[in-house]
Amino acid sequence: MTKLFGYKVAATDGKARRGVVRTARGDIQTPAFMPVGTAATVKGMLPENVAATGADILLGNTYHLMLRPGAERMARLGGLHRFMNWAGPILTDSGGFQVMSLTGLRKLTEKGVTFKSHVDGSAHFLSPESSMEIQAMLGSDIVMAFDECTPFPASREVSLESMQRSMRWAQRSKDAFGKRPGHALFGIQQGSVFADQREESAAALKGIDFDGYAIGGLAVGEGQEMMFDVLDYAPGMLPEDKPRYLMGVGKPDDIVGAVMRGVDMFDCVLPSRSGRNGQALTRMGAVNIKNARHRDDPRPLDPECACPACTGYSRAYLHHVFKANEIISSMLMTWHNLHYYQELMAGLRGAIESGSLSAFAASFHARREKGDLEAL
Amino acid sequence: MTKLFGYKVAATDGKARRGVVRTARGDIQTPAFMPVGTAATVKGMLPENVAATGADILLGNTYHLMLRPGAERMARLGGLHRFMNWAGPILTDSGGFQVMSLTGLRKLTEKGVTFKSHVDGSAHFLSPESSMEIQAMLGSDIVMAFDECTPFPASREVSLESMQRSMRWAQRSKDAFGKRPGHALFGIQQGSVFADQREESAAALKGIDFDGYAIGGLAVGEGQEMMFDVLDYAPGMLPEDKPRYLMGVGKPDDIVGAVMRGVDMFDCVLPSRSGRNGQALTRMGAVNIKNARHRDDPRPLDPECACPACTGYSRAYLHHVFKANEIISSMLMTWHNLHYYQELMAGLRGAIESGSLSAFAASFHARREKGDLEAL
Repeated sequence: MTKLFGYKVAATDGKARRGVVRTARGDIQTPAFMPVGTAATVKGMLPENVAATGADILLGNTYHLMLRPGAERMARLGGLHRFMNWAGPILTDSGGFQVMSLTGLRKLTEKGVTFKSHVDGSAHFLSPESSMEIQAMLGSDIVMAFDECTPFPASREVSLESMQRSMRWAQRSKDAFGKRPGHALFGIQQGSVFADQREESAAALKGIDFDGYAIGGLAVGEGQEMMFDVLDYAPGMLPEDKPRYLMGVGKPDDIVGAVMRGVDMFDCVLPSRSGRNGQALTRMGAVNIKNARHRDDPRPLDPECACPACTGYSRAYLHHVFKANEIISSMLMTWHNLHYYQELMAGLRGAIESGSLSAFAASFHARREKGDLEAL
Repeated sequence: MTKLFGYKVAATDGKARRGVVRTARGDIQTPAFMPVGTAATVKGMLPENVAATGADILLGNTYHLMLRPGAERMARLGGLHRFMNWAGPILTDSGGFQVMSLTGLRKLTEKGVTFKSHVDGSAHFLSPESSMEIQAMLGSDIVMAFDECTPFPASREVSLESMQRSMRWAQRSKDAFGKRPGHALFGIQQGSVFADQREESAAALKGIDFDGYAIGGLAVGEGQEMMFDVLDYAPGMLPEDKPRYLMGVGKPDDIVGAVMRGVDMFDCVLPSRSGRNGQALTRMGAVNIKNARHRDDPRPLDPECACPACTGYSRAYLHHVFKANEIISSMLMTWHNLHYYQELMAGLRGAIESGSLSAFAASFHARREKGDLEAL
């Protein structure tokens, strides 16, 4: 594990970047979508099948894993990769986002956050230092700095206070992380929807010097228009020679718009969660398989899709197994959605390489506007 | 679909038979275990993975499928095979067992059974004629005669009345089935634990002439000892040149004992259901993965097993995902159990071929008695 972490831009198209993130566990082709494996599993998928969809990297959730099975146990068992049978790179979040969401169950001080486990009610503490330690025990390849995801909406004053604390925590995260060849640490920009605070945050992070930079505090209820307003300027405040990761995003059109604004990495529970809820995401828009109109439909979900759900099964079958609450419903719908997401990322990468991203995006939007796939 | 159904015995060892059932959709190596795909899915498994465990044939449940998605719909969609993406043979039960179990919700007459759907409460009717029609609409390769699975315990009088009605229904099933080249119809022996009634039932079935013969009314609470008592004589009452199918059996040691008594085919929900419930079935006995002793155990479930659960994951992982209620727990545990069952069947087939079934059975029992795998 002595190979160093690195990032190289291979091509650009406008603000969009086609790059490669090199890690000790393999390359990540960017723009990249990272499926979420919260509790050491991408729900409903075997890891080899996640890889087959084209995913280069998974995301793991520190909060969930520290509570169950526990970070020390994970370390004794050889780390998260071996535990969940995934040989490729893993990015772990810091746990901050989840513990901040535990309204009424957590207490925030400058030192860190005390909170109660949703599993057994036991008391826990997370800080920049403990988050770095836990992520190291998990064996994460890309470690995220511990911060507060500023809620939306926030006043200028609340946002500023939160962002500045996150920047102090970013420095403490860097100090605690130390030097770990082959492992990377990403800082997280905050500042809500305020450009001057985004600039102040970016400057602070650059001063600390990270291996990559995330854009935090978006996709928290501000809506796509306001998110894109921030993304019109926020990525450009971050170093050009480091990967940029937009946390928790998003819907397919969010991703296309963010890539065009210079973002390289994404994660979101949407494809897996909506798959379990019977929603297929396709190039023609969303298909709700629970809709009775699919009951007798012999056609595949998306006739252009090469995933196992679309090549092996009718909409009638997918409707049936969803209604019957069968496990295979979650398996097939999740597989389709992850396949579609990875195909979208591959399309975006190809378009940047060939300098045709605008045309790609125009076609992407036209097909979605034209086509209610469900009604075809 | 003009290829005829057939059965050929390739080798025997005592009463045990090593054979091949030929169907239009492929051969079934016997002794065979048929995984149960109740609602057009083997719960938690993709059909290609069921095939990878070594299964030649699946079982589908007429009762569940007629209610949801419905037999007419299934026929319009091209039948059960296409619907569930399984190209191999499928055996369907008659629906009789399930509707008889609907205590208080069904009414039995000579004509058939009126019952209410567990899905939506709607009224339905099943008879020999309608069961044959529904199984034909499903596209079943091996159709089961409509009968009553006599409950246990039953008095001689109750059993006799039930068996004789089932034999009248067997004749009506045969008449309704007619001639369908490439599709087979199996009759079902009843008679509870009464040898004279088993003989009378076998004689009636042979008089009607079926493509194969099932032994019904066992594994319904009588216990293994009493079941084996019946199996000491019941299979021998059935034709030697036709396959013999013991319905709803069973545990691994039930299967070994029944094969030694001349049974060729089995089905049971045990491997899939117990997998979902966190119980692994292994050559050393059962392992309850929810047991806290597995929490830190880096070893595989069964070090000798080549299934994906055993080659890719620790007991600690399997424990974790079971406790976290993750879908992958059902997926991996079911895969292991089905793999083990098919490996057991392959072992039995090999032992019969080489005339070493007694030694195989002795070793099978010795390993289970010696080894609490869980405690190793």
